[in-house]
Amino acid sequence: MPYSKTRPFAGQLHIDLAALASNYKRVKQRIGIHCEAAAAVKADAYGIGIERAAPTLSEAGCKSFFVATLQEGVQLRGLLPENDIRIYVLNGLQDGAEEILDFHLLTPVLNSVTDIENWTSYAKRTRPYLKCILHIDTGMARLGLSEDELETVIPRARALGKIIDIEYVMSHFSCADEKGHPLNNLQAKRFQYAADSFVFSKRSLANSSGVFRDESWHHDMVRPGMCLYGLNPTPETENPMQPVVSLSVPILQRRTLSKGESVGYGASWVAEDKCELATVQLGYADGFNRSASNAAKLYWQGHACPIIGRVSMDLTIISLENIPPDLRPVQGDMIEVLGPYQSADDLALDMGTIGYEVLTSLGRRYARNYKS
Amino acid sequence: MPYSKTRPFAGQLHIDLAALASNYKRVKQRIGIHCEAAAAVKADAYGIGIERAAPTLSEAGCKSFFVATLQEGVQLRGLLPENDIRIYVLNGLQDGAEEILDFHLLTPVLNSVTDIENWTSYAKRTRPYLKCILHIDTGMARLGLSEDELETVIPRARALGKIIDIEYVMSHFSCADEKGHPLNNLQAKRFQYAADSFVFSKRSLANSSGVFRDESWHHDMVRPGMCLYGLNPTPETENPMQPVVSLSVPILQRRTLSKGESVGYGASWVAEDKCELATVQLGYADGFNRSASNAAKLYWQGHACPIIGRVSMDLTIISLENIPPDLRPVQGDMIEVLGPYQSADDLALDMGTIGYEVLTSLGRRYARNYKS
Repeated sequence: MPYSKTRPFAGQLHIDLAALASNYKRVKQRIGIHCEAAAAVKADAYGIGIERAAPTLSEAGCKSFFVATLQEGVQLRGLLPENDIRIYVLNGLQDGAEEILDFHLLTPVLNSVTDIENWTSYAKRTRPYLKCILHIDTGMARLGLSEDELETVIPRARALGKIIDIEYVMSHFSCADEKGHPLNNLQAKRFQYAADSFVFSKRSLANSSGVFRDESWHHDMVRPGMCLYGLNPTPETENPMQPVVSLSVPILQRRTLSKGESVGYGASWVAEDKCELATVQLGYADGFNRSASNAAKLYWQGHACPIIGRVSMDLTIISLENIPPDLRPVQGDMIEVLGPYQSADDLALDMGTIGYEVLTSLGRRYARNYKS
Repeated sequence: MPYSKTRPFAGQLHIDLAALASNYKRVKQRIGIHCEAAAAVKADAYGIGIERAAPTLSEAGCKSFFVATLQEGVQLRGLLPENDIRIYVLNGLQDGAEEILDFHLLTPVLNSVTDIENWTSYAKRTRPYLKCILHIDTGMARLGLSEDELETVIPRARALGKIIDIEYVMSHFSCADEKGHPLNNLQAKRFQYAADSFVFSKRSLANSSGVFRDESWHHDMVRPGMCLYGLNPTPETENPMQPVVSLSVPILQRRTLSKGESVGYGASWVAEDKCELATVQLGYADGFNRSASNAAKLYWQGHACPIIGRVSMDLTIISLENIPPDLRPVQGDMIEVLGPYQSADDLALDMGTIGYEVLTSLGRRYARNYKS
């Protein structure tokens, strides 16, 4: 079974930075001229690599970035040191982090009354009008001021405005991916009410799905994440975004199995007939979810190759039976995990999860190739 | 809600290297004096970090290490450059990798007739008696010589022995974690038959579970992996190993929810009554599987805190209702993900997966603390 000497030894992850930039511009086209398009780059830019993603987005015109954690903010500030780049930390103001945020020019999203107290008290100790975003919970019950907390803060809005600069009031949709979900309008309405009480602050509500649904949700700034990386913000219809990620993995071995032989750990799949299989270098230690076992598929030149048996730590077994015998791949051939025939959203569906998890789980053993 | 200034901003992953060394010694005690205990350190030493795990195991007396890929082998050789340390690459001899393996003193596991041809032809071109392991498939259908291939190789065993040094004949159990699974004895028997044909080679069959089940499976070398890292090799009974990994994550915010309010993406959980929740800094981007949504639990001082709603990218919401009100944790408190009250095996069960995947998925955003 001869094969080319130039074939790679590891899975090949291709990241299309031009598509990332183009997706950012697609969002810009979608929103009004007075609305800003920020970018969510938390979780290593949804797994594609913040070191390349953030500068690409910056060159495409993005000035505001959202990260989850303080550490991510510090890392991103190192990548984008320019004064006019704003970096917002979504997970709030952990107590004692005030100096670190300030030193690295990071802006906290204040999620609670405690966060507000801590930031105002730091502003009093240092200098007034420290910037921040105020996060109002309108239906996620995750982070942000509850309705009750909001009622205690509203009467202090003017006084607060003399100590800290609440640049934006923001909230976050819980069901914007589901078109017409009743919570969407309810959240938009609750947000409107809350934001009306902070007259000097701008407003930010929409995530990726919000950008592509209702223009009244755009306000002063949208905060897309997933759609920048090629996931579909409107799952009920065609994906308006360009794919950013593709991934292929090498076949290590082909094998003909006799009827009655079992495959993989737990012998969870048994051959009903003689069949041809291939073992590829891809496992759950590469972030390829074990729930793909006996459920998902990979592709060879457009032919679906069902995953047979349990995905193991470093290896996955596929069936070649759907492929005409003379067209079957051989040892060393690269099998598509993500690419023209299978998007991250598609694969996620078979795995029982969402495209986001497919991306953020992309492992460290692939060779990472960036195309700009 | 005041809390200590010294609390960490990130999840804290603790790796007990002394427990790792002790687990290795536990395996040594379990096997005969003439049997060697190798260590599987593929997938970044099952997620705990090969840079610390490999030297620890080496100091504990381990001389033979198994990795999955060529790249892992090259990395490990850098960590353990000593001549008497043997590094075996399980995923075989990808064509063209001969020189790389040889240069880094890596020994391939030959999985196919093609692998044998490539290694013998390289030996002929360079020098005789190049070391290797011959992998016989006895029931995984994943890697290794099939029965048919074996029959073609056996008659050449003596001739091969003049060109390459087949140090070991090995095979791999598919169901050793299941006590008394009929495949176990069948595989052991098939292995015996195959190994009998390579009279100058030593034998290796047992993985972690194999070590703790049947002494007749030990042969000349055992290759434990999971049990070294504290997972239970005999799931039907008490874990004979010491835990190696613990993980705790900070509470970012506490919240009281009213009856009828929903939680998280997709509003998949709705409060039947007023209840108290906490949001912790832990998400699927940290390798915390989304399948934990509405299914798994975290712990606070021994009290189970069920996960409520969907796990999101950076955040997870737990219920505090099981905890007496005056004992409930506050913002900044560290909640146990893995530790005395929940092992990786326990958590995996609730997630519908296995402890291995919990470990190999451990994310990069935790602070990693090694105790030796």
